[in-house]
Amino acid sequence: MPGFEHAGGRQDTATRIQKLRARITRFGFSAFLIPRTDAHRGEQVADCDNRLGWTTGFSGSAGLCVVAIDRAVLFVDGRYTLQASIEVEGSTFEVSDLRHGSIVGWFKENVHSGSEVGFDPWLHTKSEIGRLEQSLAESGIRLLPAHNLVDDVWDDRPDPPRSRVFGYPESLSGESSVSKRSRMAEVTRSAGADAAVMTLPDSIAWLMNIRGSDLLGSPVALSFAIMDSKGDTTVYLELPRQFSDDVGPALNVRPKNDFIQDLAKAGETILVDPDTAPVMVFDHLQKLGRSVAEQPDPCILAKSTKNPTELSGTETAHLRDGAAVAEFLAWLDCQVSERNVTELEVASALADFRARTGELRDLSFSTIAASGPNAAIVHYSASPESNRKLEMGELLLIDSGGQYLDGTTDVTRTIAIGEPDGEHCVCFTRVLKGLISLARARWPKGRAGRHLDALARYHLWLAGQDFDHGTGHGVGQFLNVHEGPQRLAHNSGCEFLPGMILSIEPGYYRSGKFGIRIENLAVVEPACLVDGGDDREMLEFRNLTWVPIDRKLIVLEMLTSEERRWIDDYHGTTLEKIRSGCSAQAVSWLTRACAPLG
Amino acid sequence: MPGFEHAGGRQDTATRIQKLRARITRFGFSAFLIPRTDAHRGEQVADCDNRLGWTTGFSGSAGLCVVAIDRAVLFVDGRYTLQASIEVEGSTFEVSDLRHGSIVGWFKENVHSGSEVGFDPWLHTKSEIGRLEQSLAESGIRLLPAHNLVDDVWDDRPDPPRSRVFGYPESLSGESSVSKRSRMAEVTRSAGADAAVMTLPDSIAWLMNIRGSDLLGSPVALSFAIMDSKGDTTVYLELPRQFSDDVGPALNVRPKNDFIQDLAKAGETILVDPDTAPVMVFDHLQKLGRSVAEQPDPCILAKSTKNPTELSGTETAHLRDGAAVAEFLAWLDCQVSERNVTELEVASALADFRARTGELRDLSFSTIAASGPNAAIVHYSASPESNRKLEMGELLLIDSGGQYLDGTTDVTRTIAIGEPDGEHCVCFTRVLKGLISLARARWPKGRAGRHLDALARYHLWLAGQDFDHGTGHGVGQFLNVHEGPQRLAHNSGCEFLPGMILSIEPGYYRSGKFGIRIENLAVVEPACLVDGGDDREMLEFRNLTWVPIDRKLIVLEMLTSEERRWIDDYHGTTLEKIRSGCSAQAVSWLTRACAPLG
Repeated sequence: MPGFEHAGGRQDTATRIQKLRARITRFGFSAFLIPRTDAHRGEQVADCDNRLGWTTGFSGSAGLCVVAIDRAVLFVDGRYTLQASIEVEGSTFEVSDLRHGSIVGWFKENVHSGSEVGFDPWLHTKSEIGRLEQSLAESGIRLLPAHNLVDDVWDDRPDPPRSRVFGYPESLSGESSVSKRSRMAEVTRSAGADAAVMTLPDSIAWLMNIRGSDLLGSPVALSFAIMDSKGDTTVYLELPRQFSDDVGPALNVRPKNDFIQDLAKAGETILVDPDTAPVMVFDHLQKLGRSVAEQPDPCILAKSTKNPTELSGTETAHLRDGAAVAEFLAWLDCQVSERNVTELEVASALADFRARTGELRDLSFSTIAASGPNAAIVHYSASPESNRKLEMGELLLIDSGGQYLDGTTDVTRTIAIGEPDGEHCVCFTRVLKGLISLARARWPKGRAGRHLDALARYHLWLAGQDFDHGTGHGVGQFLNVHEGPQRLAHNSGCEFLPGMILSIEPGYYRSGKFGIRIENLAVVEPACLVDGGDDREMLEFRNLTWVPIDRKLIVLEMLTSEERRWIDDYHGTTLEKIRSGCSAQAVSWLTRACAPLG
Repeated sequence: MPGFEHAGGRQDTATRIQKLRARITRFGFSAFLIPRTDAHRGEQVADCDNRLGWTTGFSGSAGLCVVAIDRAVLFVDGRYTLQASIEVEGSTFEVSDLRHGSIVGWFKENVHSGSEVGFDPWLHTKSEIGRLEQSLAESGIRLLPAHNLVDDVWDDRPDPPRSRVFGYPESLSGESSVSKRSRMAEVTRSAGADAAVMTLPDSIAWLMNIRGSDLLGSPVALSFAIMDSKGDTTVYLELPRQFSDDVGPALNVRPKNDFIQDLAKAGETILVDPDTAPVMVFDHLQKLGRSVAEQPDPCILAKSTKNPTELSGTETAHLRDGAAVAEFLAWLDCQVSERNVTELEVASALADFRARTGELRDLSFSTIAASGPNAAIVHYSASPESNRKLEMGELLLIDSGGQYLDGTTDVTRTIAIGEPDGEHCVCFTRVLKGLISLARARWPKGRAGRHLDALARYHLWLAGQDFDHGTGHGVGQFLNVHEGPQRLAHNSGCEFLPGMILSIEPGYYRSGKFGIRIENLAVVEPACLVDGGDDREMLEFRNLTWVPIDRKLIVLEMLTSEERRWIDDYHGTTLEKIRSGCSAQAVSWLTRACAPLG
C-alpha cells in the first residue's frame, strides 16, 4: 500500500525553519508563503513538491504555512485540524483554520504594515493571490513574487518524477483525442482566444488520451499544455522520459522548462483559467502584452460528463473492485475473531486483495483504515506511531479505492469488530439513512449539490448531529479520485448533469471515540417517468459500488419499509453482481452478509 | 371579502390597445412596456396603478405586457400561465413565459433592429432595465424612458388612494422609530452615504412605525422616504390625507410629487437599492451629479428578523385566526353534507368568521377557495364566471389569511368534500410528508432556503412529482404577507436567521383535475441542544399556525412513526391552543378533527 511517508520529524523541522528564516531575512521579506500545492493544483504532489510537508511535518493534502521571522502558522481546514495538531505538536507551528478570513486576520495581527511577504508565483492561482492582495491592501502588507526560498534550503530535495507516458485507448476513453481537441478548440474560439493554456495534468491526460504515474493515486504525468484554436496541442513534460509506442509521434512534446517562453508564440489572446492556473502564467502574458480570456479550463466540465464507453468501463472496474473488497471483508471477519489485527495490516491486506485482481494500477489514494478514536480523524492515515490493534466492540472505518485502467473506485465501509454497542448502531443507522436518501433520490433537472446535500444530513440534524465535510465529490475515469466541477456540498452550485460520477459519503464523527462513514459511487442519469408521476424531466443516481454494508450496525426499527427494501435490494444485487469474482470462501461470507434484513 | 375586481372585459381591451397603439406610434416607439408593478414594487397595486390589468384583463399579481404595433404579448410566470391563458383568451394577447431569456427572445424576433421601445422609469428598477438593455444591446433595440402612455389613454383612471395614516404602537412593534432609524442611519453611514432613499412602503411603515390602508391586503401608505445620516426622515405621501393623533407632529410629511426634486437637498452620496428603487431615482441623481451607494434597502433585512414583542403579537394573532378558521371549517363540514356550497360562498363565509373576531383589519390577500380542477390554478381567485359548486369526492383548497394589528396570518388547508378518492389521499400524504419534514427540521446555522427546499419536495420527487412554486416566503408583522429577503426556494441564498417568519407550503397540482397545498407559518429560532447530539449551533422552526389538517386525506401507511407522532402532537396542541376561542359547536368539531390518527 503506497502510504504517505512523513517528510520530516519534529527535530528536523526546527533546523529547516531556522535556515528558511535566514533566507527570508536575506531577501528582505517579513514572511514567506508555503502552500501544499504544486503548479498543477493536484491533491497529491510529488515528493519534490511537498514543501509544506518538508517544512512542517504535516501530511494532509491541503494547507498553507506562513513562516514569519518570529512566528510560524499552519492553516488547515476542518478535516485536518485534529491531525495537524497531532503532527506538529511540540514544534514552533501554531495550527489555525484555513479560511481566507483567518489568513488575512493572522497577517494583520502578526505582520507589520509596510512589510513585504514573498510567494512563489508557480504555486498560487491568480484568484488566490488577487483575493489575498485585495484583503491586505489597506493593511499596507504587500505580496511579492519570488523564487521559492524553501528550494534554496532543501538540500536533499528529490528529483521530479519522470514516469513513462502511455496512451489511453479509445476502447476505454470512448472518444479520440482529435475529437476532444476539436470540441475544446471550439470553446476556445468562442471565448475569442487564439489558444488555451492548460495546467491541470488530469485535463491534459483526458484531452490527449494519455496517462502516466508521476503521482501516487493519480495516473497522470505532471504537465502543462498549449492548444491552438485548431486543436493542435503541445504538451510540456519533465524530460527525458519514456513514451509507450501507442503515444509516439502523435504527441507533440516539449521540455517543461520551455512552457513559459513558448507562451510568446501562442497568439494574441490566450484562454487561461484564473482559478487553476499559476499566477506566473498571467504575469508572463502581461509582460508579453498579451490579452487573457479568463475562463474555466474547458476540459474540466467536458471531462466530468462520462460517455457510455467510460461508464461501461467504470462499471466493470467496480465489479472487480467490489469482489476484491468482499474478499478482504471475508478475510477480516475471520481474522478478527481469532486475533487483534492492526490498522496497518488491514490496509496492507486490502491492497493485496486488490492487487490479486491482476488489474490494479495503483490505489486511488492512501487507504484510511482507522479504528476506534482514530476514525474520528476524517483523513486519518495509519503510521507506525498511530497504528492501533482492532479491539472487540470498536468500529473500523475503511476508506479506500483502486485505480484500474477501466475506472477509478472509492468506497468506504464501517465495520463492527465483535458486537457493536447501541450508540454506534444508532449513529450508523442515521448515516445510512442519509446515504439511502440520496441513493433513492430523483430531482428535476437544474439542481446542484447545494440543493441535495441536506438529504444526506437530515436524520443526523434531527438528532443534533452533523459531519464537517462535503457529502460527495466527483470522480475521474482512471484519473483523479477527486475531480470537479460537481460536488455534493452546501456550497456547490455546479448543476448535476447526466454522466457525472459522484461519491455519496455521509459520516458521523465523535472526537476521541469513534468515526462512521459509508460511501458509494453513483452516476447521474436521466430518470424514467414514474407511473402516476408528472411529465417532467428528472435525474437520478445509478449506483456503481457493490460492497455489503455491515448489517450488524443497522437498527431495523429506525428504517422505513422503503429503506429496508433499498438495503435488501442493494445486498441482493451486490451478491448477484460480484459473487462470480469471489472465491468460494468469500461467496459463503458474502451470502451471509447480503442476506435480507431480519 | 375584498377580492380582486377584473379591470376590464375582453371587448374593452381591444379598444384600449387600439388607443394605446396610436400613442406608441405618435411618440415614435415600436413598443411600450407595461409591467404589473407600481413605483413601490408591491405585489398589490392600487387600482390607479393597475395598468397591466386595465390593458390586458389579466388579474395576477406578477406579469409584464409588451404592446408593439402589430403584436402584443403578456409574460407571466409558472404560477399564472394557466390563469393568464383563460383570462386573455380571445384577445390579441399571446401568453408567454416570464423569464428574462424569453422576453429578450421575443424582442429579438418581433421588434426591428434600430427600434426604440418606451418604458415608464417609475415602474422599473435600475437592475431590471440594466439587464434588459445589456441583453438587447447587440440587437440594436434601444429602451427609452418616457411618461406613461397608458395613462394618456386611461380616461376614467381612478384617483390614487389616500388612506388615513396611523401609528403602530411600540407595545406591538417592540422598538421605537427613533431606535430603528438610529440603526438604519448607522448602516447608511457605513455605506459612506449622506442619506438613504426608501421607496418600499413596508420598509417605511416598519421604519416609522406607521400603517395605512392604501392597498388591499397590505396595511401601508404608498410612500417614498429620504432619511439623512442622523436618521431624520421625510416621508412623501399623496396629500391631503388624514393622520391619527399618535402619528402627528413626529412624522415629517411632504407631498409625494416633491420627492424627486427633494433629492437635490439630500446630500452628495445617496444610498439607493438598485433592485427595488425606480430607475427614475438613479437617472435623476445622475442628472444632479450625485453619487449613489448601491446597496439593498437596509430596512429589508432588519424588518425580517422579528423581535420578541413582534413574535408574541404574531402568536396571539395566529391563535385568534386559527379559532376563526376552525369555526369556518366546522361550519363548512356541516354545510357540505346538506347542500352544494360554492367557492364564492366559501371565501365569503371564511371572511365573515375572521371578521367576527372583531380584530380583523383586512384579509392578507384575496382568498383562494378553489375546488376540483380550479385548485390546479395555483393563484386562482373565484369570480362569478369561474365560481364552482363543491361536489362530493372533490378536493377544496383554501388559502387565506388575516391582517390583525398584532400580526399577519397565511394558512392553506386542502379539504376532502365527502369521501376522497385514493389518488387524492396518496398525493396529499406526500405533500404532508414534505410539510412535516420541514416543520421538524433542524439545521446548522448558515443555511438558506436553497439548502432546505428539497426536504419539502423529496417524497413528491420519488413519485416523479413536483410543484412549480417556491416552498415558502417570508411574512411581515401587520405588513405584507409576502416579505423578503428570505424565501424557501431552490434559488434563494438568503441565510435563515432567528426571528424570520416563513411559510412552509408544499403542494401538488394536476392540471384539469385537482390541486393540493398545505401551509403553516413558522418562525426560525435557535434550537436547543439534543441529548446525545453534538455541541453545534443549530436552528429550527417553531410553528405559528394552529388549524387542523384533514385526517380523511392522510394515508396512514405512508407515514413513519415520527410523522404520525408529529401529526398527533400538532393536533393535540391545536386543540389545546384554540379551543378557548371557539364556539361550543366548533369545539365539538375541533375535538373530532384533532383526534389522534387511528
